[in-house]
Amino acid sequence: MSELIPVHEAEQRIRSSLPSFGTEQVPIDRAAGRVLRQAVRAECDQPPFDRVMMDGIAIALGDGSRRTFTVRGRQLAGMHGQSLDDPSGCIEVTTGAVLPAGCDCVVPVEQCRRDSDRVELVADWQPQLRQFIHPRGSDCRQGDELLAPGMRLRAPELAVLAANGLDRVEVARMPAVAIVATGDELAEVDQRPLAEGQIRRSNDRALAAALHGRGFDDVLLTRVPDDLAATTQTLAGLLASRQVLVLSGGVSVGQRDFVPAALRELGVTQVLHRIAQRPGKPMWFGIGPQRQIVFALPGNPVSALVCAVRYLLPALEQAVGLPGVGGEPVVLAAPANTSPTLTCFIPVRVHHDGAGRTLAVPVPAPTSGDFSGLPHTDGVIELPPSGTPAAAGTVAPLYRW
Amino acid sequence: MSELIPVHEAEQRIRSSLPSFGTEQVPIDRAAGRVLRQAVRAECDQPPFDRVMMDGIAIALGDGSRRTFTVRGRQLAGMHGQSLDDPSGCIEVTTGAVLPAGCDCVVPVEQCRRDSDRVELVADWQPQLRQFIHPRGSDCRQGDELLAPGMRLRAPELAVLAANGLDRVEVARMPAVAIVATGDELAEVDQRPLAEGQIRRSNDRALAAALHGRGFDDVLLTRVPDDLAATTQTLAGLLASRQVLVLSGGVSVGQRDFVPAALRELGVTQVLHRIAQRPGKPMWFGIGPQRQIVFALPGNPVSALVCAVRYLLPALEQAVGLPGVGGEPVVLAAPANTSPTLTCFIPVRVHHDGAGRTLAVPVPAPTSGDFSGLPHTDGVIELPPSGTPAAAGTVAPLYRW
Repeated sequence: MSELIPVHEAEQRIRSSLPSFGTEQVPIDRAAGRVLRQAVRAECDQPPFDRVMMDGIAIALGDGSRRTFTVRGRQLAGMHGQSLDDPSGCIEVTTGAVLPAGCDCVVPVEQCRRDSDRVELVADWQPQLRQFIHPRGSDCRQGDELLAPGMRLRAPELAVLAANGLDRVEVARMPAVAIVATGDELAEVDQRPLAEGQIRRSNDRALAAALHGRGFDDVLLTRVPDDLAATTQTLAGLLASRQVLVLSGGVSVGQRDFVPAALRELGVTQVLHRIAQRPGKPMWFGIGPQRQIVFALPGNPVSALVCAVRYLLPALEQAVGLPGVGGEPVVLAAPANTSPTLTCFIPVRVHHDGAGRTLAVPVPAPTSGDFSGLPHTDGVIELPPSGTPAAAGTVAPLYRW
Repeated sequence: MSELIPVHEAEQRIRSSLPSFGTEQVPIDRAAGRVLRQAVRAECDQPPFDRVMMDGIAIALGDGSRRTFTVRGRQLAGMHGQSLDDPSGCIEVTTGAVLPAGCDCVVPVEQCRRDSDRVELVADWQPQLRQFIHPRGSDCRQGDELLAPGMRLRAPELAVLAANGLDRVEVARMPAVAIVATGDELAEVDQRPLAEGQIRRSNDRALAAALHGRGFDDVLLTRVPDDLAATTQTLAGLLASRQVLVLSGGVSVGQRDFVPAALRELGVTQVLHRIAQRPGKPMWFGIGPQRQIVFALPGNPVSALVCAVRYLLPALEQAVGLPGVGGEPVVLAAPANTSPTLTCFIPVRVHHDGAGRTLAVPVPAPTSGDFSGLPHTDGVIELPPSGTPAAAGTVAPLYRW
């Protein structure tokens, strides 16, 4: 039986094996949540003109002593062309308008008393030069790099795309994923009644939901029977049409674990098999002949999900160009058991304390065979091999479901 | 002009005004990310049978002194019906199989030497009673409540649904949202060239992306001109077809801010207008005649997004049944300015320190008029009114983009 591989080495082997999925152009309407693969530069100065920041009047300040003005025109947002030739006059303006030529100060409407076309400033208001004017180019200059490849497109980035005229944008292509359940004991979710010895397929739904939560939505669910020929045939078809295969079950050393054999036969190169961790020890990872990514996860539900959040999701995020971030450091709120030889992943529920810390309460799963205990948890923490339990206060990386 | 409303009171008024959007049944394939609106109980004991946890042999342990066994049959996962009548025999088993009748111990295959149908235990292996058997009902008993209404359906919850035979599930209905841009100065993202005084519509893209990030995907983008009749007509149509209207712009006190007037005319009851905060002071919120939710956000881009993450997203999350969580407490890494009378929202970039704390570095936006500075930030922190700046080390709530 092969040696167990330490967790950090497994991660490194995976990270150094990954292909990219390439890029594609998408309309801005479908870009939210995607990963940017181009630089975005400012289309023009921002603001593109001296921009009025308040509804009110625009004036030529002079020495600031003038208190009354005659309205000579209006310059509303979206209009242009007004100008003020005479400091006794003023131009009505609205937020977002171009500052009229000849003006150098805006007085907010709240500080004005208006009587017909005559405006008097409120007694204690002293206007200042350039006040309530957002100067042209003060946010950015034409050509400045505003967005860099590898950014997730969230609200601010979408606004920057739109403000700079990008109605299409180059983003990372998302892979087509297949999730393959193995095991003759599996029944469909809608099969009734269950025969003795059957359990319903559920790992694949958990894995699909975990992928969905990170934006990987092109996911096909399928299954293979515990049979080498059938497994090989199904996997051959999937390797031809999907960039990522995620199998659950069939990777232990039992006589019916056909998955590694089938993958070998199909030319998938094994990168690792069996990791020094609990749960999830039997995990297998390889790269196919067309650089398909193949994760063969254990069949135990908790094991499969732990391997998914620790290896699968970070790998796919790297492959679409996101920076690797690793686990989020959290503080153990209670002691947790460790193993002298294995890295342990322990389900936790997290909450915040009053000092800005994230605390993790261990919720040990009684077995790796069941999901029932996990809905009240947020993810797993990773505890390295140790001869003693991890004390409360230990900082450990959290991987969220 | 109306009094400014404190932030916490604005939040309370919104929270106490919200309708529910009702529920709907969806197939499990489309349930990921949705909010559960039913209880889910265990369909049967889990595991439903004494379940074999390792590939190996099942034996009748007796006093534990027997070291060799004759294989009398195989019970693979998904099969049933084998039984062992004689303690000198054993049954081959695989992970996930039903424990054969008459057996009370599993010996892993790694601890067995097999020669034809004879199995001898490895020298130092001492099997234990009930070892590697996951007892029936040990994870949960039939009828136990496994999931409660109000849970977001993530990976573990999807697995629980599937394992318990729910191929359809009752979830919160997601509202139909319209985002309405106002302002004659707005140009479309693909318009070329821009006329003087024009800027491209971008707030609506930011708001749509923020909604998308929380699972609100049914979002229509539209616009109205700066004209009361046209605004009223468009909003009337939207109120008839959407449950949530989000407007940006047109809510200040300037003469062209038609939005509150149009909403009044359409029977939308004002719940609040103008909040004691910066940015975002002009925000307006009301409830329509059919309990439509109407947020009229300021037109300034940063102001609009701040109001969205502070009020709009939490309100919609409450309306679909999620528990209110408020901001995530983070630690200021540097001093930040406050106002004596206004709550300040300050963009920050966050990172983790080695002690499990989340640190927030203030990235003040030079004005509320531009998104250019926000792509490198994670959200805003909320600082209450204060006569002195907030010191480094202050804990403040973070609202993520």
